[in-house]
Amino acid sequence: MSVPTPSEPTTDIPPTHAVVDLLGLVALGELLAFERMAADARLAPDLRRRAALGEMAAAEIGNYRRLAARIAALGALPDDAMARYVTPLQAYHDSTEPRDWAEAVTKAYVGDGITDDFLREIAGALAEPDRRLVLDVLHESRYADFAATEIRIAVEADPRVADRLSMWARRLVGEALSQAGRVASADRGALTALTGPGEQVDVPGLFRRLTAAHTARMAAVGLNN
Amino acid sequence: MSVPTPSEPTTDIPPTHAVVDLLGLVALGELLAFERMAADARLAPDLRRRAALGEMAAAEIGNYRRLAARIAALGALPDDAMARYVTPLQAYHDSTEPRDWAEAVTKAYVGDGITDDFLREIAGALAEPDRRLVLDVLHESRYADFAATEIRIAVEADPRVADRLSMWARRLVGEALSQAGRVASADRGALTALTGPGEQVDVPGLFRRLTAAHTARMAAVGLNN
Repeated sequence: MSVPTPSEPTTDIPPTHAVVDLLGLVALGELLAFERMAADARLAPDLRRRAALGEMAAAEIGNYRRLAARIAALGALPDDAMARYVTPLQAYHDSTEPRDWAEAVTKAYVGDGITDDFLREIAGALAEPDRRLVLDVLHESRYADFAATEIRIAVEADPRVADRLSMWARRLVGEALSQAGRVASADRGALTALTGPGEQVDVPGLFRRLTAAHTARMAAVGLNN
Repeated sequence: MSVPTPSEPTTDIPPTHAVVDLLGLVALGELLAFERMAADARLAPDLRRRAALGEMAAAEIGNYRRLAARIAALGALPDDAMARYVTPLQAYHDSTEPRDWAEAVTKAYVGDGITDDFLREIAGALAEPDRRLVLDVLHESRYADFAATEIRIAVEADPRVADRLSMWARRLVGEALSQAGRVASADRGALTALTGPGEQVDVPGLFRRLTAAHTARMAAVGLNN
């Protein structure tokens, strides 16, 4: 694996260690999302929905596998690439355990939406084939549709649920932000490396875009920010 | 969905309701196995093994999906086909929660082995395409190899583990037998219907074969019965 020294001229191709770290972050996200969704499936009100969430979970593991394979192809160990991010990502999930089905599908809806926006941003900074790989990890729209439908059903059945789920969504975003800060601290500079030498990562811009998209998703299912 | 009355002449093709019930039992088994293995993945000592058990779990959901699709094609609701078996199968898993990685892989190894033997017996009594479908649900041998390797590693690291895991395997088999009795009671006669009119299900023969295969699997990984 090549590691550029500070005096080497940098190019437009991101340094391998930065790509490995980033893929490690995404891979770990997929692995944990798989485990959590599989666990949350047990909150489903019937077997059909239980299996639906199970299938959504299984899709994450397929993604995990491809990311891990690419990390290995780049000459690194997937475990090593993921290790530095375990604490904050695990903490995010540990502090956002859904208590019922409505919270479980809301977490899938909110979490997948923000993750996908973040992945699109990352992909823009990568070269092929990593750009394509990251874009392939985006969630199938039918899963977002499924989660959105379930939220709307819950809100229609009981309007007070809208307030509770809105508060839950705010909690999810808050926890995600707080752990994102810890991810950035654990990071070895992958994000900075990916935006080229001398350029600051446009963090305010990134947050603005992620927030706007999240707000729109909330409105689409009858929840407020 | 045709339901033969007692006075109708029976044929070699199993009645649809019996096939639906049997596929329902297998489908539920896959769904619960998926959930439990995904949960047990968190016991893994490292991320590589965690992901390995996660991948094994994800394979079960693919099987579940195909079985559910076939049940629907036969004109029944998958939920209905599975419902009667939920209590005993859930009880089996609730009373066999692994406490550590060694117990988790032993459960996968023992459980998958007995399940596969049972599926082969069932498949023999089915007509196509259900015979092929059930045989396709058999676990990939690489998963059994993975679990077996993990058990051998644990036993080599600490020989006392062999006694503990042997006892755990006896517990698994005992719970499985006890819930199998409850499955048979909940059953609407699917197993009997599948072995033709007038023929008793060769239960002693079935148990002999399942037990012999289980004993051989135990010996293969250094465990005793």
